[in-house]
Amino acid sequence: MTDQKTAITPRRDEDFPEWYQQVVRAAEMAENSDVRGCMVIKPWGYGMWEAMQRTLDRMFKATGHKNAYFPLFIPLSYLAKEAAHVEGFAKECAVVTHHRLEADGAGGLRPAPSAQLTEPLIVRPTSETIIGATYAKWVQSYRDLPILINQWANVVRWEMRPRVFLRTAEFLWQEGHTAHETEAEAIAETEKMLEVYATFAREFLAIPVYPGEKSESERFPGAVRTLTIEAMVQDRKAIQAGTSHFLGQNFAKASGIQFLSRENTQEFAWTTSWGVSTRLIGTAIMAHADDDGMIMPPRIAPAHVVILPITPKPETREAVMAAALALVEGLRGQTYAGDPIVAEVDGRDIHGGTKTWEWIKKGAPIRIEIGPRDLEKGTVALARRDQGPKEKQFLTMAETVAAVPGILQAIQDGLYQRALAYRDANTRIIDTREEFYAFFTPANAQRPEIHGGFARSHWCGGAECEGKIKEELKVTIRCIPFDSVAEAGTCVVCGEAGARRVLWAKSY
Amino acid sequence: MTDQKTAITPRRDEDFPEWYQQVVRAAEMAENSDVRGCMVIKPWGYGMWEAMQRTLDRMFKATGHKNAYFPLFIPLSYLAKEAAHVEGFAKECAVVTHHRLEADGAGGLRPAPSAQLTEPLIVRPTSETIIGATYAKWVQSYRDLPILINQWANVVRWEMRPRVFLRTAEFLWQEGHTAHETEAEAIAETEKMLEVYATFAREFLAIPVYPGEKSESERFPGAVRTLTIEAMVQDRKAIQAGTSHFLGQNFAKASGIQFLSRENTQEFAWTTSWGVSTRLIGTAIMAHADDDGMIMPPRIAPAHVVILPITPKPETREAVMAAALALVEGLRGQTYAGDPIVAEVDGRDIHGGTKTWEWIKKGAPIRIEIGPRDLEKGTVALARRDQGPKEKQFLTMAETVAAVPGILQAIQDGLYQRALAYRDANTRIIDTREEFYAFFTPANAQRPEIHGGFARSHWCGGAECEGKIKEELKVTIRCIPFDSVAEAGTCVVCGEAGARRVLWAKSY
Repeated sequence: MTDQKTAITPRRDEDFPEWYQQVVRAAEMAENSDVRGCMVIKPWGYGMWEAMQRTLDRMFKATGHKNAYFPLFIPLSYLAKEAAHVEGFAKECAVVTHHRLEADGAGGLRPAPSAQLTEPLIVRPTSETIIGATYAKWVQSYRDLPILINQWANVVRWEMRPRVFLRTAEFLWQEGHTAHETEAEAIAETEKMLEVYATFAREFLAIPVYPGEKSESERFPGAVRTLTIEAMVQDRKAIQAGTSHFLGQNFAKASGIQFLSRENTQEFAWTTSWGVSTRLIGTAIMAHADDDGMIMPPRIAPAHVVILPITPKPETREAVMAAALALVEGLRGQTYAGDPIVAEVDGRDIHGGTKTWEWIKKGAPIRIEIGPRDLEKGTVALARRDQGPKEKQFLTMAETVAAVPGILQAIQDGLYQRALAYRDANTRIIDTREEFYAFFTPANAQRPEIHGGFARSHWCGGAECEGKIKEELKVTIRCIPFDSVAEAGTCVVCGEAGARRVLWAKSY
Repeated sequence: MTDQKTAITPRRDEDFPEWYQQVVRAAEMAENSDVRGCMVIKPWGYGMWEAMQRTLDRMFKATGHKNAYFPLFIPLSYLAKEAAHVEGFAKECAVVTHHRLEADGAGGLRPAPSAQLTEPLIVRPTSETIIGATYAKWVQSYRDLPILINQWANVVRWEMRPRVFLRTAEFLWQEGHTAHETEAEAIAETEKMLEVYATFAREFLAIPVYPGEKSESERFPGAVRTLTIEAMVQDRKAIQAGTSHFLGQNFAKASGIQFLSRENTQEFAWTTSWGVSTRLIGTAIMAHADDDGMIMPPRIAPAHVVILPITPKPETREAVMAAALALVEGLRGQTYAGDPIVAEVDGRDIHGGTKTWEWIKKGAPIRIEIGPRDLEKGTVALARRDQGPKEKQFLTMAETVAAVPGILQAIQDGLYQRALAYRDANTRIIDTREEFYAFFTPANAQRPEIHGGFARSHWCGGAECEGKIKEELKVTIRCIPFDSVAEAGTCVVCGEAGARRVLWAKSY
């Protein structure tokens, strides 16, 4: 126990990486499985993913997309079709080589040599190649375009240094794949979907983001342009929270997506792809959790309100439980942000303090306690997760039902404002090389994770300067923000002329 | 072209297996991918799966379950923990042996020998073992029970004779996995979830089913009891449409799911698992489609109503499109079976007849045509997919909006009644061996798929009789139906005494 009595040990300011692991554990969101790099997403963490899926799915459908499903496996030869793509993904993939097991003669099992595949299959790390091969069959004429499809799926990238939610061998995501008649239309789609992601991050995850374009070295393997939203978390590092790629005709050429144009000529389609993943769960934890555990942004919380009946004596139990259930019914009849409020009663027969702290650690936005004395007074005790664990307001049942939607929105807004203030306080305009190096050099060698934050500095546009900073400071260009104005300046690395400031940061 | 002018060639009565493939294709529900046995589920097919997921997910949550997610990969040693289980699944699984590719020196790629896994991983064919290992960590005391979790996931079983939706190497499904304190509680759960499936099949898929228990030889590998729902499709074969397994303590012992009981003793938990898959899509097609294509049961249709604007002349186009959009708005404000009506306008600039037939083949429950002459008369032409392609009723816009929910329910009820009548007409009480053999012997050797249907006949309970019939007639005991009453009789195979009739059929 530390003298601070926080629910999570260590605190954020003591050891951020370990604090993160402990929050994930204490909030019962996920755990590592026995399969290297693969996580188990527990109901509270998966509930958050379901809320995120529901919202994003609506946004995709509102922008004209439909869902479909493509194979988990990609023939090795498909992956090899696009040169940059294979370079990017061949180094970390799961390779299926056999389709049967047999007794190994020593009481165990082995892949049956007689069941070796002629061509190995790759578990999809992303689906451009297999979907491209399918679109090639679907598209004959310009009338078949655009194709606007999204897929919810699991993907596998063999990560050498996995970290739950942020970098796991298997993760869940959605991947949009579209094909268009013209370059302009494909670029508009790429931009539109990045805007969807930015809106989702801000309004649902309560995380401010910088939308912008990746430099060439940070592009998706095979893309012509990669757009990104970049978030800052509480150790001031950046997390790439969503990307949207303009693929030009690269994958269309690799896969043979050709169509007869309005001018009666054979043309290659222009394609895009865009995705967000369970990494967003890790991002939200790192952005919002505190030393007592997770704080769920209400708009993506698995439950908005948890009701904790206090039943010290058997004779009052029935009345208290009845009141709790009545309150749940009342709340479920209310809406918040267009959807019914999700409220649940935790009627487990365990110690009240333990139960309360479980929900604090899980980050339920609102906790409501009802005990025998509350019943006598006709009130309940309402606590907000964004306030101290002992702060409570006493309201009648009717007042509670009426107040909850407004409180949820206040929590949502407060989380966003706090994250925005934190990011802005740790984003610096930097014009000299000295200041730049100082900004990114940890003051305390024992705590290498603590550094300045985001720097908005000029860059000459050269890959050499970018590479030098990456090597020396582990700092990369997160993006060329869309809000960067044309402005004369000098590259913070080499001193040559730069046309606009870019966003530099350490990142996950 | 046949003289019958059906949209699907061949007709059901000409070649049922080929008719099925052609319906899947014509309805744009799925297609085979270039990866052996893996399908691409197209938007219209996936939309049906989404509707099914939405419904089942609600039913699971209403019965106290939460969703979670477990790893795609299972270590080989886990699969081997339960003897019957490994026997059942080792013969058809995808085995991951490497985690990196490298250049093969001949311009291609190969699995890198230096990146061979110490222990191969199996792509999950089902998740009892990996989930069991997780539950073993979660469960310490009886207070940790029950665990009521469901997972939506993809699974892989290397099928040698794949058939789209019905038997594919990769398929989508849900798998419930629960752990309980007592045997009675686990059995009650197993039965409850089968009842959920039976309700779903009848009320949503519009498919009558026989719920019952599998004989020992047809049990899930590792289960103590397997409950099933069995449906009849239009070639009179059975399809196992959902199963719920009581696993006893088999997997708890294999995985070490132990708890301290109320009596302070260490006990193994009692577990269950239950699942339905994209196979249900194939079942619904085989049950309901006709010689013009799919007929979607309204309660799981991706769209209830499709509006087809007829715009022969440019000068009337705007008014027609405006009317179509107004109608869509009106319909979206209506509900059917508790959810908003899904209506869409097909404004594509293609030949009207082609467009109408596309929607007939896709099986949209209701088609509404609006043309310039309809506008003049103030009516629209409404056509039901369960009636002839030329049958139409003429209604005003207001009448249409009001009538649609009732028409949808009439279609839903009609599909169920038709399927029920078909099944009952092809289910026979059979008491003699001669009649039994005649019933299952195709009258026409050219058309081996045509036979009697379901037989309800006595069985002595012996695996030998079961095996003999399977070998000689390719007929199996689909289940011992719950509605089978205790009744004296003689086994249709050996003539020994039997206690109740069981359900015999050929099956997919």
